[in-house]
Parts: sequence; C-alpha cells; structure tokens
Amino acid sequence: MKKLIAVLLAGLLVLPTLVLAEDAPVSEMTYILNTFSFLVMGILVMWMAAGFAMLEAGLVRSKNVATICLKNISLFGIAGILFYIVGYNLMYANVDGGFMGSFGFWSADDTAALAGDYSGGYSGASDWFFQMVFCGAACSVVSGCVAERVKLWGFLAFCVILTGFIYPIQGSWGWGGGWLAELGFSDYAGSTIVHSVGGWAALTGAIILGARKGKYGKGGRVNPLPGSNIPMATLGTFILWMGWYGFNGGSVLALGDAASAIEMSNVMVNTNMAACGGMIAAMIMVQVMYKKVDVTMALNGALAGLVSITAGPATPSLGAAVLIGGVGGVLVVLAVPFFDKLKIDDVVGALSVHLVCGIWGTMAVPITNPETSFFTQLIGVLATAAFVIITSSIAWLALKYTIGIRVSEEDEMLGCDSSEIGMEAYPDFQRVSIGGSSGISGYTSSSVQRG
Amino acid sequence: MKKLIAVLLAGLLVLPTLVLAEDAPVSEMTYILNTFSFLVMGILVMWMAAGFAMLEAGLVRSKNVATICLKNISLFGIAGILFYIVGYNLMYANVDGGFMGSFGFWSADDTAALAGDYSGGYSGASDWFFQMVFCGAACSVVSGCVAERVKLWGFLAFCVILTGFIYPIQGSWGWGGGWLAELGFSDYAGSTIVHSVGGWAALTGAIILGARKGKYGKGGRVNPLPGSNIPMATLGTFILWMGWYGFNGGSVLALGDAASAIEMSNVMVNTNMAACGGMIAAMIMVQVMYKKVDVTMALNGALAGLVSITAGPATPSLGAAVLIGGVGGVLVVLAVPFFDKLKIDDVVGALSVHLVCGIWGTMAVPITNPETSFFTQLIGVLATAAFVIITSSIAWLALKYTIGIRVSEEDEMLGCDSSEIGMEAYPDFQRVSIGGSSGISGYTSSSVQRG
Amino acid sequence: MKKLIAVLLAGLLVLPTLVLAEDAPVSEMTYILNTFSFLVMGILVMWMAAGFAMLEAGLVRSKNVATICLKNISLFGIAGILFYIVGYNLMYANVDGGFMGSFGFWSADDTAALAGDYSGGYSGASDWFFQMVFCGAACSVVSGCVAERVKLWGFLAFCVILTGFIYPIQGSWGWGGGWLAELGFSDYAGSTIVHSVGGWAALTGAIILGARKGKYGKGGRVNPLPGSNIPMATLGTFILWMGWYGFNGGSVLALGDAASAIEMSNVMVNTNMAACGGMIAAMIMVQVMYKKVDVTMALNGALAGLVSITAGPATPSLGAAVLIGGVGGVLVVLAVPFFDKLKIDDVVGALSVHLVCGIWGTMAVPITNPETSFFTQLIGVLATAAFVIITSSIAWLALKYTIGIRVSEEDEMLGCDSSEIGMEAYPDFQRVSIGGSSGISGYTSSSVQRG
Repeated sequence: MKKLIAVLLAGLLVLPTLVLAEDAPVSEMTYILNTFSFLVMGILVMWMAAGFAMLEAGLVRSKNVATICLKNISLFGIAGILFYIVGYNLMYANVDGGFMGSFGFWSADDTAALAGDYSGGYSGASDWFFQMVFCGAACSVVSGCVAERVKLWGFLAFCVILTGFIYPIQGSWGWGGGWLAELGFSDYAGSTIVHSVGGWAALTGAIILGARKGKYGKGGRVNPLPGSNIPMATLGTFILWMGWYGFNGGSVLALGDAASAIEMSNVMVNTNMAACGGMIAAMIMVQVMYKKVDVTMALNGALAGLVSITAGPATPSLGAAVLIGGVGGVLVVLAVPFFDKLKIDDVVGALSVHLVCGIWGTMAVPITNPETSFFTQLIGVLATAAFVIITSSIAWLALKYTIGIRVSEEDEMLGCDSSEIGMEAYPDFQRVSIGGSSGISGYTSSSVQRG
Repeated sequence: MKKLIAVLLAGLLVLPTLVLAEDAPVSEMTYILNTFSFLVMGILVMWMAAGFAMLEAGLVRSKNVATICLKNISLFGIAGILFYIVGYNLMYANVDGGFMGSFGFWSADDTAALAGDYSGGYSGASDWFFQMVFCGAACSVVSGCVAERVKLWGFLAFCVILTGFIYPIQGSWGWGGGWLAELGFSDYAGSTIVHSVGGWAALTGAIILGARKGKYGKGGRVNPLPGSNIPMATLGTFILWMGWYGFNGGSVLALGDAASAIEMSNVMVNTNMAACGGMIAAMIMVQVMYKKVDVTMALNGALAGLVSITAGPATPSLGAAVLIGGVGGVLVVLAVPFFDKLKIDDVVGALSVHLVCGIWGTMAVPITNPETSFFTQLIGVLATAAFVIITSSIAWLALKYTIGIRVSEEDEMLGCDSSEIGMEAYPDFQRVSIGGSSGISGYTSSSVQRG
Repeated sequence: MKKLIAVLLAGLLVLPTLVLAEDAPVSEMTYILNTFSFLVMGILVMWMAAGFAMLEAGLVRSKNVATICLKNISLFGIAGILFYIVGYNLMYANVDGGFMGSFGFWSADDTAALAGDYSGGYSGASDWFFQMVFCGAACSVVSGCVAERVKLWGFLAFCVILTGFIYPIQGSWGWGGGWLAELGFSDYAGSTIVHSVGGWAALTGAIILGARKGKYGKGGRVNPLPGSNIPMATLGTFILWMGWYGFNGGSVLALGDAASAIEMSNVMVNTNMAACGGMIAAMIMVQVMYKKVDVTMALNGALAGLVSITAGPATPSLGAAVLIGGVGGVLVVLAVPFFDKLKIDDVVGALSVHLVCGIWGTMAVPITNPETSFFTQLIGVLATAAFVIITSSIAWLALKYTIGIRVSEEDEMLGCDSSEIGMEAYPDFQRVSIGGSSGISGYTSSSVQRG
C-alpha cells in the first residue's frame, strides 16, 4: 500500500513534467509561432524587392528609370513562378548530401499538422514563401549591375534561368542539405548563397554585356554617370535595411521556443550594428579619401555592412558586428574604383556590395563561430563561384546569340525607357541635356498633348 | 484496491487530456495570437493607403500630384473617424441576416477577456482596426479614378458618405452576417465587398464628373496623359503587393490555432502567385499587342491579379492562383481601352483593376471552392452593384448641385495643385510645357523668392 | 484508505491548477511573445527613420535633398552605435530613482531564459533594439529643423552627443526608473521623453544656427521656401503614421498576456484616431484661415495628432483620442507662424509638431488617466526642457567654436548638396532658377559627361 501511495505520489509529482513533455497544445503554439515568423519575416524580405527597385531607380539616369522599375518588379514575379514550378524542389527535395534536389512543381502537405501532429514545425506554405523571397533577392542583385544597356526580355530570360535553376541548385548544396552542408559550410542567411550568387551572375553579365557607352574614356578616364534621384536611392536603402531584419532574423527558421526568440533578437541587433558600422566606416573613408562624403557611398556602406554580417549574424557580439560590417564598408569604398579600373561597369555598385562583401562575410564567420573553419568556408565560396560563373556565362552567352541581351547603341543613347518600354519615367520634367544625357529630346511619343 | 489503482492510474493517464481540454492558458495564447494577427495584418492594410497614394501620385500629371497626395491621406483619416462614429456598427452590430446594422459610436468591450474568459477570440479594438483599414481601402480605389478634375472638398464629402454609409451597409450583407451571408455568398477578403464597391463608386463618379479636358479628341482619338513619376507608381504597387499579404492573410481572422496559421500561409502564397500571374500575363499581352511593354500595364497587371484572388485565396492551388491572377492581368489590358472607348475617363486604371477584376475574382471562387455557387456569387455581385451605383449616384449628384464636385476649366488647365491646394508638388523643377501641360506657368505664388 | 483516495483525488483535481500556476511552457510562450513584440514593433519604429528622411527630403529645397537624406540615414547609424557604447546603460542600468544610469557597453544576458527561467520577460537584445530605435527617433526630429544650413559633420557630432548622452540621461529619469518615475510622471511612449527632447534640441540648434538666408525679409516678411517634393513628404508622413503603431503599440512592453494584447489594440486604435483628428482639424483650420488647404499642414496635422497622443494612448476613448489629436492639429497650424514671428527658422515644422504637441500631449494625460497629475506632468516637462536646453546649447556652442556648425553663405546659396556632399539629388532635371534658387548653376562637377 505504501508502495502504491509512493507510486501515485511520484506520479503526481512527475505528471506536470510529463504534461510538459508531451505537451500537445504548446507544441501547436510553437508550430503557429514558427509559421507566423516565416510569414512576417518573409513579408519583410519581399519588401526588399521594393528596396532594390527604389535603390536602382535612384541610381540610374532618368532615361532608364521606368525600365529598371519594370525589371525589378517583374523579376520578383518570375522568381515566384519559377520557384513554384521547379526551384523549391530543386533546392530542398531529396538532396540528401548531393548536388541538387528533384524536379517537380511544389505543393504544401500539411495534413499531419491538421490532424494534430505538429512535428513538422511549421506550415509548408510559410516555409515556401520565406525561401521564395530569398530567391527573388538573389535575382534583384543582378538587375542594378547590368542596368542601362541590357534588353528587357533578355534580362528576364536570364532571371528565369537564375531563379529556376542556378540559384536553387547551388542553394541545395548548403541549405538543402547537400554536399556543402555535410562538409560543415556555414552561411546563416546567405552572404554566399544569396548575395554572392547574385554577384557572380551580375559579374558575368556585366563582362559579357560590356560597359555603357561613355562610361570609360580614353587614358583610363572614368566618367561619372550620376544617379537621377538620390532620395529614392536613400529610400531603397532604408527599405533594404528594414527588410534585412527579416532576411537575417527569419533565418533562425523558428520562433516557437525561447532559444530561437533569443537568437532572433541577437541576429536582428547584430544585423543593425553591422549596417551602422558599414555606413560610418564608408563615410569616414570617403571623407578622408575624397574630402567630401558621397551619399551613395554611405548607402552602399550600409548595405555592405548588411551583406557582411549575413553569413553569421548569430554569434558575434555587438562590437564584433560593428567591426565585421565596418570592414565591409571599407571594402566597398575600395572595390568601386577597383571594378572601374577593370572597366567592369557596375551601375549601382552591386558587385562591390553583394559579391565582395558576400565573400568577406562568409570568410568572417569563423572569427566568431568556432564551429566553422576558414577552409570549409573557402570551399563553399569557391565552389559557388565556379558553378555560378560557368552556368551564368553559358546562360548570358546563349541569350546573347539568340534573343539578344544588349540594346542598340542608338537605343542606349535614347535610353531604355524609350526603346524598351515606350514611356518616360518623368515625362513632365525638363531634363538637363549636356552631351545628350537625357536622351529624351528625340523621343516624343508621349510628350505631346498633355494638358 | 485494484479497482482503485486502476481508477487512479486512469486518472493519471486521462489527466493530460483534461488539462488540454480545459486549457485556459492556451486559450489565452490563442486570444493573443488572434489579436496580434489583426494588428500586424491591419498595419499592412493601412500601409496600402500609402500604396494607393504613391501609385496615384505617380500616375497623375505633375500639376495634380500634391492634390492627389492630400486626397489619399485625408480619405484615410475620414475613414477612421466615420468608421468609428457610424460605420462599424452599421456593418457589424445586430445585422442578423438583414440589410444593415445599427447606428451608434463604436467602443470596445473586453471585460470578459480581462476577467479570463477568452471566448470572444480577440480584442475588440484589434477587430475594429482591421475592419477600419478595409473601409479605407475601398475609398482609396475611388480617388485615382476621379483624379485631376474633382474638387477637394467635394471628393472628401463623398468619402464621408462612402466610408460612413455605403461601404458599411453593403458590407453588412456579406461580412456582417446579413442576407448575402445567409444565402452563402463567399467573398473572403473583399473582391466584391471592398474592390468592386470602390470600383462602382468610382465609375459613377467618373461618369457624373465627365472626362478630363483634352483626354478624348475628335474621331474617337484617345490622348495619352502620361503619369509624371513612374518609380513612384512602382513603389505604390510594391506597397500594395506587400499590404495585400495582410489584406488577404489577415482575413483568416485568426492565428491562434494551427489550422488558421496553415490557412494564412496558403492564402499569402496564393495572393503572391496571383500577383505574379497577373503581372506576367499583362506584360505578355501588351508586348504582343503593342510590341512594347507598358510599365503601368505591368503594375496594373499585378494589382489585377491581387484583386482577382481576393475573393477566394484559401482554396486554389498555387497553379490555379497563377491562372486566376493571370486572367485578371489579361482583363485589365483589355478593359483599359474598353473604358476609353466608352469615354469613361479613369486616370489610373482603377475601374479595370478593382471593378472588372473584383467581379471576375468573385465569380471565380466556385472554380476552386465547391461550397460556393456561381449563382449565389452572381447575386452578390449584382446586388452590390445595384446598391452602390444607386447610392453613389445620388451622393455624387447631390454634391454636384450643392458644394460642387468639378473644378473650373481654367483651374483644371492650371492643375488642381494651383487651384485647390495652393502649392506645387515639385516647385523646384522646370516642367515640359507643350500644350500648356505643366499648367504651372501661370502660377507663381510659391515659386518666387526661393534661395 | 478513504482519506488516501480523497487526498489523491484532490490531488488530481488540484493538479491542473498547479500545472497552470507553475506553467513553465506558457511562460515560455509569454516570453516569446513579449520578445517578438519588441522586435516587430521595433522594426516599425526603425522604419520611422525612413519616414523622417522622406518627409524632410520632400520639404527641403532640391539643392539640399541629398544632404538631408545622408543626415537622416547616418544619424540612425550613430544612434545605434552610441546607444550600444554608452546610451542604453546610461538610461537603464542602476538608475535607482536617481538622475542617470551607469557607463559601459551594453551586452545581453539571457542565460536565465536559456536555462528555462523566463522571469526576465523578454530577451535582452529585443529590449535593447526597441529602446535604440526610440533614441534614433529623438534624433530624427532635429535634422529637419536645422536643415539647409547646418554642416554635415557638425550636425553628426551633435547627434553623437544627443544620442549618447542627452537623450539617455533624461530618459533615465522617467523610463529608467529615475526621479521622475518615482514622482509619478507618466509618458507612455515619449511625447516628452522622445519628441520634446528632439524638439528642445532642435530649438536650441535653430536659434544658435540662425535662420536661412532669405527666409526673413524686411518688415517682418516671411518668405516661403517651399519643399521640393510633396509626394515624398506625403510618403514620409504615411511611413511615420505606420511606424507610430509600433512606437506606441510596442510601448505596452508586453504581448504575452491577454491584458497586454488588449492594451496594445486600444493603444494602436487611439494612435490612429489622434492622427485622424490632428489631420482633419489642421485641414479645416487652414481652409478657414487661408481659404486653401496647404498639404504640408495636413501632413503636419497628422503628425501633430500622433505626437499628442503619445504620452497617454492607453486610457482615452476613441473620441477623446480624436480630440487630443485634434487639439494638436490646431496647435500646429498656430505654431508655425508663431515660430516664424520669432524668426526661429524651422525648415519642416518640427518644433510645431514635436515640441509644441509633445508638451500638449504630456499635459493632456491627466484628462483621461486619473492616476496622473497635471503638476507632476508639468514638472516632467519643465525639468526635461531645462536639461535639454542647457545641454544642447552647450553642445551646439562648443561645436560652433570648434568644428563649426554652419556652412558658408556662398555654400548655402549653392546648396549643401554641392558644398557638403559633392553630388546633386536630381542631376538630370532642370531646376527653376528664380533668385538663384536651384543653386546648381554654379556646380558642374557631376553634371557633365552624362549620356
């Protein structure tokens, strides 16, 4: 009898623990919070597409603004459709340590969760949504670099290849559980997997397309072709900064337990500090080097900091995050003239920000994360580089010799808005016309009969 | 004794279930999550007011930009006040299968929840907030359509009538538990109840106001009056796309159980896919029809897709969502010249997007949702059309013959910014003046003494 | 034996209650929700930095737009770094009823929560993030007021002092548990602690800097120097309105219990109603006084309403919130000419909005909150005023006589973009040049060789 009582009392004492351990309702809450985190953070990452659009619309000349707007919003649409048709499964289905997943349309299967088994962790569609917006972000990196001379449909065709195949296949290596994941490659939110991928694809595009007419003069002279709307570029940077909280914060991939919520907080704070560090470092650099602060360098410095922290935002202290971002800000100030010296014409500085700092950020992970190694990180960087350079080059060249990727010289002078879009971005405003810059003088289709 | 042990052991085994069933704390979590979902999603829908403002500011001519900004932000303020004074209760209080609710100021009553009874599901104010921003969205549809010639105060008076009476009364039929709800009419997030209502109100306004001077020439010629700021219109579209995740996703009206979280995820993904489908379809259509992609058609295509999916975003597969949105994108490309042929002057394409696709989206629900019928959907569409056309016409006409709704011909030439607002949107910039388009030449009040 | 059974049965009955009371898992959920609320609401407040940037970029003349963009984004970076290095601890560490906290870098300590003790309530970094963005907001108030003549690096040096010392020290009095908190001073989300602090710092700056050249003519004439981009200012206002839901809503400082979620809902709704009231009141006022609605007054009216409700958004009814905001809207219309009469040149109306309405909002708290007193509120307002006026004046004067705070007269004519930034905001566009307003004519470094 005493034994019985003991057993029962023990049961009573143990019971709360059992309740907690089995704990179906809390588990449902965890499932909901993980799902909701994917959705909210995914919306913030989607918003980055608007940030890229505004940044690039502000940094191209007025005669190419409508075109770059169209490219940025349509590439996001393409990313959504391609990631549904082929991308997601290529990146995440049955990768099993290999080099790519399987082909097939994606669809959610939440029957287990609807039956009360929450072990899946989150709803299928919330995960798809979060991964899809990352795919769009990789593609957004490209548009700014190759702006002002790439053909609309040629560019969009490249977006199909990038978002449907190149991005998901390399993404499967690290995030899909492929061979790089098995090696121990660590890229928290995608300094390599997202930003450098966009960067390599942009680099090959910029080289194959060639520079804009008039960008590089005789004797190594680099002609500034200043952006047409600085507040719009500033807005774009703010949007990207804001969206990056979701980009990195959502990459915890969970919210339903306290440890994940704590990690998400640390990630967001470090993300912010890296942006601060990158911006302030770039501002000081340009002030010292050029005696004036170039506002686009400050903006690109902030973005450089953000890219730099993206591979490992969970482990640094705030001070380390400032420094990691700060190095990114210094790099971007040095990289912009470097690419100009190579006559690689990057309209918005995308290579300096996303490629250079994407590499730096990936290599910086082991500084604060002892579970990673420089060597493995280097393998990831190089393998990604090789794959994206080769596949992108094939894609750009195939498009070049089929539908074409570069507008005619005359159209480039007139501006892509006239030749590709048939509308002006700012038709009511008189443009400065030194050197035919506005290109609008010869374009009248919509500038009559207003009023 | 064995029986006792058995009972007690059974109790121990059953107990976790009992805990789960009574489960007050989880229920509090459900209440919190439902509430928080209303707030976060409501903020996204509020943000759509900014999206409409930017879209319309980009699509009107520069001489009317300040006015359209003012209209868009002030109509949102009016919606807030009217929905508090009369709208919410007219839409939701004591409808009981009838044709409208009751009159009276709204106030929250959360005493039950504060006392631990969470059966209400969510806080009163969170629900009010979410419904209020929808009311604002319906009103935002109107401003763009009747822009560039409607008087400021005449328009705002119409907003009072629309947000305080027309919108809430018809809204009570479907969403307030009125006669349409009893019939089985299904309009998840408001293709009919929000978008077509704005569309019908805009249509009556556009007809009663008449077209802008110079829009329709002799022999059926339609003069393009291009928008003045395409990147701003693009930003507006991105904002609307972003806000639509909240518009449709929040319309699950719950988040605190796994089924709702799953539904919200599916809704958001389908919302995104429909926007992709609408945009890409519209781009291909205009490329084929006009040999160039009109960027405003791409933007309107995305919005068309979003409106089209809004009546039923929970049931389609992703592929079906692309198609539903894609049909919307095709419709908008056909509808814009159709309204021009009728000489109904819709400045931003609001009728093509919100009215045409609102109807299409509502009728498309039974394709993927077997619990609905085409016939009932049609009744909803027609009843809403009849009610809004009649009441809006009365309102517009009553305002026409009292405070006036159309600016003078001279003021229209000068631009509403000069006549109604007394300030220019872009005073520092020289405007193109072919055909007196800028209208600013005769307006000097604020353009002196700068510097 | 019966006794035993009774005890055990009692145990079984009592057990659920015990489980609920100890309730570790629910407590974890509360911890997560509190944390997530800080993060999401903090992101919205960060977004207000973009709102200030757009508002100010729209309200300054085109020749100063790039500079104001740079100031706004870099001050947010400075706020992040300073709040980490010194601000947070100065505001919140060991204040204990005193006049300031302690010095030292901030770092999170979440070891208790990671070990399962959730009594801390939320993660350290989430709290830091939420408080940091408030610090940034206070600083954003200053930039618009002193725009168009303050030196970039002089201004940024002031930002260091404001965000690192002035803001945190006074913030410790009320929010850090200092002497004002002990007195019973109530400032929910910072009408005084954030907005009036920014306002006082801006006022001293505006006085010490002096007015812009040409603003005040002979015989008391006030020359309008209209903003260059009204839709951008409108966008900024929408962003601020949106962000304010987080500013006030997040200031509940919790979400993990139903009472907090209810309070958050009420706060957000009242925040919205005050904005509505302020905007509509300002519109009616200017229509009556000047026969036309000045759109910038409508925008500032909305912001005035938002500032006014910020000190006490939890206690008013919706109607009271409309009135509190409405008084703010009236005040702003009266205050703008008042400051002009005093020849205090406030470029964007920041003093009228943030200082005047910050005071009004703080003093209005006792109207709806019986736990507060006018006298204590007045002490808080006056003590904050005294402290910020004195410290800001010392800071501005020290900077004036060291690195300098005002650009040369010639540079002011040319515009800060030319002298401080070395780039134009809108280089492609021809500017109106009456009275040398554009200032760009003499600036050619980047306006050649485009195209």
